[in-house]
Amino acid sequence: MKPTTFAIRGAVCFSTAPEKLTCFENAFVICQNGRTVGVFPQLPAQFDGIPVRDVGEQLVIPGMNDLHLHAPQYAFHGMYMDLELLEWLNQVTFPEEARYRDLSYARKAYSIFAEDLQKSATTRACIFATLHVEATELLMDLMENTGLRTYIGKVNMDRNGTAELQEESAAVSTKDTIRWINDTAEKYENVKPILTPRFTPSCTDALMHALAELQKTYGLPVQSHLSENQSEIAWVHELCPNTSFYGEAYDQFGLFGGINCPTIMAHCVYSSDAEISLMKKRGVFIAHCPQSNTNLSSGIAPARRYLDEGLRIGLGTDIAGGHSLSMLRAIADAIQVSKLRWRLVDDSLKPLSLEEAFYMATMGGGAFFGNVGTFMENYEFDALILDDSILRHPQPLTARERLERLIYLSDDRCITGKYVSGNKIF
Amino acid sequence: MKPTTFAIRGAVCFSTAPEKLTCFENAFVICQNGRTVGVFPQLPAQFDGIPVRDVGEQLVIPGMNDLHLHAPQYAFHGMYMDLELLEWLNQVTFPEEARYRDLSYARKAYSIFAEDLQKSATTRACIFATLHVEATELLMDLMENTGLRTYIGKVNMDRNGTAELQEESAAVSTKDTIRWINDTAEKYENVKPILTPRFTPSCTDALMHALAELQKTYGLPVQSHLSENQSEIAWVHELCPNTSFYGEAYDQFGLFGGINCPTIMAHCVYSSDAEISLMKKRGVFIAHCPQSNTNLSSGIAPARRYLDEGLRIGLGTDIAGGHSLSMLRAIADAIQVSKLRWRLVDDSLKPLSLEEAFYMATMGGGAFFGNVGTFMENYEFDALILDDSILRHPQPLTARERLERLIYLSDDRCITGKYVSGNKIF
Repeated sequence: MKPTTFAIRGAVCFSTAPEKLTCFENAFVICQNGRTVGVFPQLPAQFDGIPVRDVGEQLVIPGMNDLHLHAPQYAFHGMYMDLELLEWLNQVTFPEEARYRDLSYARKAYSIFAEDLQKSATTRACIFATLHVEATELLMDLMENTGLRTYIGKVNMDRNGTAELQEESAAVSTKDTIRWINDTAEKYENVKPILTPRFTPSCTDALMHALAELQKTYGLPVQSHLSENQSEIAWVHELCPNTSFYGEAYDQFGLFGGINCPTIMAHCVYSSDAEISLMKKRGVFIAHCPQSNTNLSSGIAPARRYLDEGLRIGLGTDIAGGHSLSMLRAIADAIQVSKLRWRLVDDSLKPLSLEEAFYMATMGGGAFFGNVGTFMENYEFDALILDDSILRHPQPLTARERLERLIYLSDDRCITGKYVSGNKIF
Repeated sequence: MKPTTFAIRGAVCFSTAPEKLTCFENAFVICQNGRTVGVFPQLPAQFDGIPVRDVGEQLVIPGMNDLHLHAPQYAFHGMYMDLELLEWLNQVTFPEEARYRDLSYARKAYSIFAEDLQKSATTRACIFATLHVEATELLMDLMENTGLRTYIGKVNMDRNGTAELQEESAAVSTKDTIRWINDTAEKYENVKPILTPRFTPSCTDALMHALAELQKTYGLPVQSHLSENQSEIAWVHELCPNTSFYGEAYDQFGLFGGINCPTIMAHCVYSSDAEISLMKKRGVFIAHCPQSNTNLSSGIAPARRYLDEGLRIGLGTDIAGGHSLSMLRAIADAIQVSKLRWRLVDDSLKPLSLEEAFYMATMGGGAFFGNVGTFMENYEFDALILDDSILRHPQPLTARERLERLIYLSDDRCITGKYVSGNKIF
């Protein structure tokens, strides 16, 4: 039987607020019944004798929460990068996603994805699958076995796809979605379904209406895309002439946050003041995907503004608009693009600090999953153990300096341990 | 004795022009007396019986030429990234460089640098050391043993430094430089000295005059920094009121290219039309350092313009303004920032393609070293062998697709072989 109380001893870093990173050179992080008790320089007397995993000089940090990525696109991550969003969807993405009709292909591709995500810095994720029910359920089976906590969505798309990748009608899409929800809603310990209208151009009003009904009936969360690219926004405006901004195209159906409809919207690069205001009011989570927004020439989202105005914001790798599965890299990318935005677009929004970007990857995105993303008391115990010994250096470094180096320089070799909700993944 | 003629068999990719990438799924690259004979689908009859290194499905590509990096700054690469150029110089860079007065520290730090550079994708590089003669010679000794071909510069700086990091006078700087040149000019097979005035704010007119004399006397190349940051440019304008643009501050002394003065200028983010025109006229090499320009919030250089207008341009990692030593990463970074520049600054300059950025890292920068950077006939045989087997994929990929993935996703584990001028490094 797994011990219900244990500690990890090492150098420890975690956020307690967007601008506040707490670091200990040597401390104990204690887990009891899947939750964090706290971080202590010495093991408190009442925990004498509990199992301690001593990781020496390695770093112990909270797990990373990836708010947006597409599992089927992992098959071509790092390729076909010389395209813009809409041409990339039609020339690369849709043809690849169509292949997941074939379950043997899906098994091959999704196995690689699940294994690589398990080894990565990610402990929790919100994942798009494809429109195919069987392949999506296969992905959920594979992800269940990784021990990571994930929301996975069968994609809905009944217009503007291709002959190979589009659902026949809103009715067929709805029927498939109900079958998928019934198959999976209570099946897993680690995986949960999330409603996933691809984006407004992919979903008819009839389909959106039906999804909103399902959302209410089953109490499911929602994920989609918002204001990523200017051509996309213009297209949505044509498709929904009754709306004054893109977010309304979801909100008019009741698929845009609110207490009973937790919602993630990816990108928000060009959200208007009105859209931002509505996201704040509805508590919509923004998945900021800096690498993808760069690769697809979309632009740079005003993450600083979202953070300062108190919106809910986390980071996403957006595989395969983003090429890297690494959430540590996503932290560095978020900082880097914020500097370029400050310099080139709007110098009233100062660059993100390391503290702020780390917060977004841990507590910011973690909030979508509950009390997740830090080592404060009663938060779910998600942790990474990081070994920076391959990053040699000629002088002693503090835990804070070593964390920064790992964020900028590490690869999966550096991730030597991982826990989700108190369960040891490796 | 090393064989003077041999072949490598694998998947082969190389540039022949900025927009032209040639790929063979399976071919022989032949080296004779340190130079490339050519790339052949079958081994030509006259080469029957030569040693062949068969690397199976691995890729064989030309070596990468890093036109700009600072060896002493490798000690803090990936740290202190939340600063802008001038504060970063004073708070981080100058204090660290001052430590190289201590040869035992220099040996420790430079050994790590030399070993890591040897393992990297870089085959040739232009490197800044510090102002210290002994530590610079130590670096040159260490780099000689790596087998990489490098230019290394003792830095000149006799103003605007710190108490710990500044030369006493132009005379002392000049005397030290002469001693260093005499010590090293003919000492090495792989390493050559390069004159290195840090940048205009660091060098008095008297020092610049003296360096120009040394340049003529010894026929040395020159490397420095140019138009990286707007505050820096404004400062140069104050320091050199007689000049109409930054480049003239070098050109007025004869330290800005020309047939007898091969020159690299790093950055060129904000070069004016007049400066660009003079760089073209003088054949100045631009070291485009996209990662550094991002990290230091400098901006994005118009690399597309430089390439299209026929200027000489290569890539630089600019350790430690840039955090990654990987020139493959520099290729991806150059593409990425060119997309943001196109989207956010100037949509008349379209993003760089993979072909163009790969060309810059190989042939573009290679031209500074002679006939270097491709597998065309008579070019020096610099080659990398790349293993992408850790980057699993569910479908067969072409050599071109695999190269793109390696550029975006690889780390030093993928570099399994390296040749410089026909000599096997590993």
